[in-house]
Amino acid sequence: MTTTTKHKIAKDRLLNTIHETAAKFGAHGVWGKGITETGVCRLALSDLDKQVRDWFIEETKSLGCTVKVDSVGNIFAEYPGQKKGPPTAIGSHLDTQPTGGRYDGIYGVLSGLELLRTLKDNKIVPQYPIAVIDWTNEEGARFPMSVMASSVWSGQVPQETVYKLESVTDDKPVTVEHELKRIGYQGDVAASYKENPIAAHFEIHIEQGPILESEQKKIGVVTSVQAYGWYKCRVVGKASHTGTTPLANRSDALLAASRMISKGNDLAHKHEGLFSVGVLTLEPGVVNVIPESVLFTVDARHVRDDSLATMVAEAKEEFAAIAKSSGCSISVEFEHIYTSPAVNFHEDCIASVRQSAIALYGEDQVRDMVSGAGHDSCATSSVVPTSMIFIPSRDGVSHNPEEYSTPEQVAEGFEVLLGAVLDYDSKRTK
Amino acid sequence: MTTTTKHKIAKDRLLNTIHETAAKFGAHGVWGKGITETGVCRLALSDLDKQVRDWFIEETKSLGCTVKVDSVGNIFAEYPGQKKGPPTAIGSHLDTQPTGGRYDGIYGVLSGLELLRTLKDNKIVPQYPIAVIDWTNEEGARFPMSVMASSVWSGQVPQETVYKLESVTDDKPVTVEHELKRIGYQGDVAASYKENPIAAHFEIHIEQGPILESEQKKIGVVTSVQAYGWYKCRVVGKASHTGTTPLANRSDALLAASRMISKGNDLAHKHEGLFSVGVLTLEPGVVNVIPESVLFTVDARHVRDDSLATMVAEAKEEFAAIAKSSGCSISVEFEHIYTSPAVNFHEDCIASVRQSAIALYGEDQVRDMVSGAGHDSCATSSVVPTSMIFIPSRDGVSHNPEEYSTPEQVAEGFEVLLGAVLDYDSKRTK
Repeated sequence: MTTTTKHKIAKDRLLNTIHETAAKFGAHGVWGKGITETGVCRLALSDLDKQVRDWFIEETKSLGCTVKVDSVGNIFAEYPGQKKGPPTAIGSHLDTQPTGGRYDGIYGVLSGLELLRTLKDNKIVPQYPIAVIDWTNEEGARFPMSVMASSVWSGQVPQETVYKLESVTDDKPVTVEHELKRIGYQGDVAASYKENPIAAHFEIHIEQGPILESEQKKIGVVTSVQAYGWYKCRVVGKASHTGTTPLANRSDALLAASRMISKGNDLAHKHEGLFSVGVLTLEPGVVNVIPESVLFTVDARHVRDDSLATMVAEAKEEFAAIAKSSGCSISVEFEHIYTSPAVNFHEDCIASVRQSAIALYGEDQVRDMVSGAGHDSCATSSVVPTSMIFIPSRDGVSHNPEEYSTPEQVAEGFEVLLGAVLDYDSKRTK
Repeated sequence: MTTTTKHKIAKDRLLNTIHETAAKFGAHGVWGKGITETGVCRLALSDLDKQVRDWFIEETKSLGCTVKVDSVGNIFAEYPGQKKGPPTAIGSHLDTQPTGGRYDGIYGVLSGLELLRTLKDNKIVPQYPIAVIDWTNEEGARFPMSVMASSVWSGQVPQETVYKLESVTDDKPVTVEHELKRIGYQGDVAASYKENPIAAHFEIHIEQGPILESEQKKIGVVTSVQAYGWYKCRVVGKASHTGTTPLANRSDALLAASRMISKGNDLAHKHEGLFSVGVLTLEPGVVNVIPESVLFTVDARHVRDDSLATMVAEAKEEFAAIAKSSGCSISVEFEHIYTSPAVNFHEDCIASVRQSAIALYGEDQVRDMVSGAGHDSCATSSVVPTSMIFIPSRDGVSHNPEEYSTPEQVAEGFEVLLGAVLDYDSKRTK
């Protein structure tokens, strides 16, 4: 038992649960000699996912929870409060990437479980019920839609769309609906925030980036999630012989694309956003032939929707200018694929997290953060007060077996979550 | 008959021979409605190559030539002169790229044939013999070594190396030696400039670049062939999430590579050379993952060997500096693949070409040129006086069925060759 908060906390129990469930339900990807030095491969709605769900329901029921499963497999384990009403919720996901670690998502759900265990140990009865939620298919790895089932619950994606999604990791593709039925997790509760409401959503997660570690902070108070836009750029020049074509006569698609990529980075600095090119292919791809065409993707991000739009608009203009100035005849097309708007979390939830973190570790150890990646909290935030807590990720590594946070970081984040949820509960008036 | 020179020239006969042999021996790749609007696919030592060789020998013998075939299939058709001695030679190649046109190489050999026909028509007996040479496998398309058999003859490549070369365009690879035997062109003459000497080598060729066309010149007097070096560059950074990794924490291998490609172009301008990247691949290649590694090729060229070396050395330094400044931890390796030194043609041969061209068309229509690509003349130049003549290529296109020069350009180039060879012959004293 530690004495850093007013409540008794079982030292190492959360970490042990993380390691035990990893060992039982999908340990995969050895990166070190230690028994816990593997990642986890637990694809959504797989047999391993069914096993961890069964275990989670058993554990929460044993604490006195009532458990609901909705029609897209989201599990709501509700711990009773003094009054009736929609629960204050703690949610994340138990599915992983194929090359996943043992913290991404899992840490959030198991911290919720640990919170319920701590309530019971301390005989704390919250004002209102507290629910722990396991959202189905946050990763979008097996079924290609991330933040899938929380988006159905929040009304942003139709259930029918999700039911028809086919797996991309099975030899014979199967649908979400098929797999929900097969593992027995197509529940009878409507997947809807209206019919199955919660009062608020808290999510604790590893940062998946290097900021907390590099600044040696313990806790990130996540105030928002940045907007992002995905685009395809096609640059078309003219193939010609590298030896016989003078510089002035070239229409080198790769030279133009290279200048665009470099300019994109300049624009990211200028606008304090992000600009990344992860995919680039070219044709014809011969040592002594100047590339005729280049196709590359753009992943542009910004905390503000309007700044993202401005940055992308400038990129389009600059790319067109680069095409014009880079050769005799080069064109560039900028195709929009997808935009995810910025999410701003709720000030009440943020305040509960901030006061909890500062009370525990002091202002020096805490900083506000913008999440770079999407989470289930993006979906819930569209309909209920939401916020998130980040703990440091070693080297910023995630979606990789080597994903790691120290035992102390895992414990410290949990205590912030406990303080934040109890604070929020205490302030609820309905 | 035209009257532009002192000799009678059969109007259109050369062009008709080009079109007739294209039609009979490998017409391929339709690009227009006209019967002559295709390219040619005539791979080295294929059945089609055998057929055109047989035809070539028959034609030259009918003019009174003696024909020798050497041990790597080079054909020497020698037209008699007044005196004995090594012949003044006109050479090029009858093989093509898989997507070849009807001029590259072919124009050079058939211009030699047309020259012999013109001597005969005009009853001209040159001072020394004149030979027309068909060099085996200049293209390196079927057997992956360009300028292959002329390089054996010049002593730059061992015959045994060439014999073992395996084809890359057959389902079942076969060797050069196998195919020489199969089509009956492994001759009994030694493939050696010492045992089968020539006195000089002239080659007429399409430019394969845009310079003559864009400057509206008729004739390029080729004084040299630029040097080139091929390299592989591997840039290694660190894969990380595009959303969660701040700009300052990135090691973006593609951003660094883009800056290198752009810098390479700057260096080409600075040194008046060429710098091209034709191949680029990256890993892992995911929209929202910053590239971990990029592999790209460099094709660097310069008229001077020392300037090429300086340009490449600067590129290495600049690339290392870019790697250092582009991320937290980016490395770059610069691997040498191949260097082809610069070739300077012989002043006597150049003088014969220049005087012939200027006498026919005036100084305004003639310019000195550096060949950007390699040719059989690069091999011969290492052992005997050599030079080349270029005619314009439409749009600079080559290695493509649409390769084209006008009937006038084809005829004008031939007349320059005729004048140059007769001038050189008249000045020979041994």
